[in-house]
Amino acid sequence: MTKCSSLLLLSLCLLPFVAFSSTFTSQNPIDLPTASKLVLDATGKALDPRASYRIGSIGWGAAGGDVYLGRTPNSTAPCPNGVYRYNSDVGPTGTPVRFVKSDHSGPGIFEKQDLNIQFDIPTSRLCVTYTIWKVGDYDASLGARLLETGGTLRQQDSSWFKIVKASGRGYNLFYCPGPLACPSCPVDQCQAVGEVIQNAFPFVVKLPNST
Amino acid sequence: MTKCSSLLLLSLCLLPFVAFSSTFTSQNPIDLPTASKLVLDATGKALDPRASYRIGSIGWGAAGGDVYLGRTPNSTAPCPNGVYRYNSDVGPTGTPVRFVKSDHSGPGIFEKQDLNIQFDIPTSRLCVTYTIWKVGDYDASLGARLLETGGTLRQQDSSWFKIVKASGRGYNLFYCPGPLACPSCPVDQCQAVGEVIQNAFPFVVKLPNST
Repeated sequence: MTKCSSLLLLSLCLLPFVAFSSTFTSQNPIDLPTASKLVLDATGKALDPRASYRIGSIGWGAAGGDVYLGRTPNSTAPCPNGVYRYNSDVGPTGTPVRFVKSDHSGPGIFEKQDLNIQFDIPTSRLCVTYTIWKVGDYDASLGARLLETGGTLRQQDSSWFKIVKASGRGYNLFYCPGPLACPSCPVDQCQAVGEVIQNAFPFVVKLPNST
Repeated sequence: MTKCSSLLLLSLCLLPFVAFSSTFTSQNPIDLPTASKLVLDATGKALDPRASYRIGSIGWGAAGGDVYLGRTPNSTAPCPNGVYRYNSDVGPTGTPVRFVKSDHSGPGIFEKQDLNIQFDIPTSRLCVTYTIWKVGDYDASLGARLLETGGTLRQQDSSWFKIVKASGRGYNLFYCPGPLACPSCPVDQCQAVGEVIQNAFPFVVKLPNST
């Protein structure tokens, strides 16, 4: 039953994203900015700020899967406003996004550059705001802030992100103060974006002094 | 950096528990109650309602670790009121608990029996209530209810649990309506207790129509 429970939990759970507290980030050894490097897509081509892309998790099975715009349970927002990940690498494709630079300058998206992220989908006028990523209010029960939509483009808002190369394959995402609040802001003033996973919990009962 | 980030996240993250929605539980294939079976500790001995035990996760490394009473960030409770798990099988030992039956009847703790769970620690009069497990209010961002303390013993409250044998090693825990609200309640009216984990999220950027 354990295995079955786990599978059910995995298939039912949402995978919302969070921005981890700065306690983490301040201890995170991040390279100092050097020469700007282009962010590359999975085929090795430089990103085009005019194009749309999908964001996919690195991983197999339930660890894989695309990021999508979804409804948050019990949310009072008038439109879908949750940033989630499908928990299957053979699941549906994610919602396309585009990366919006703080200025309109030239081609390419660079690592550690301030970016807004917007789901690139046809939507109603009411819901346009709910395509733009932002980081929500602090959630005490999570000790983190959930990633959601309802942000702004190129404003002083909690809608600023940086893409940073991971040591292995792919990139990590950081939530940052943005170019208006913190020009040329180092990544160590940002917070890592991670995800919240609900797992089953099989346990054993142990004697107080046993190992 | 990915690996380092993951390790940091694991070492800093809290592992709070949640009761999953009944949507899950109603689809969970649970045996119908038959003859009552004693719950056994990790050494194979029947649990003693007068003794205290530790609850340990089944798993190695970060998947292992004991359950403990800890402070919830930003909680307004006057005492520690969070039920967490250490995320290391070689970490500190957990907070002892005892299992309290709805009646005071005889020896043994049985599977699917209604139980309160209480951290068995010396504490101040103010904090006694905050040793008793309960399931908190629904958290919309999690789509689940967090496990916390501040419960009651043998009252009609959200403090009732059942222990159910897992198909492999160990047991699963379910949050239930309790013997006052639902006498002889089947486990399929209960909710599985699981845990919330914060993970790092390395990603790749994909073209909209790629796999």
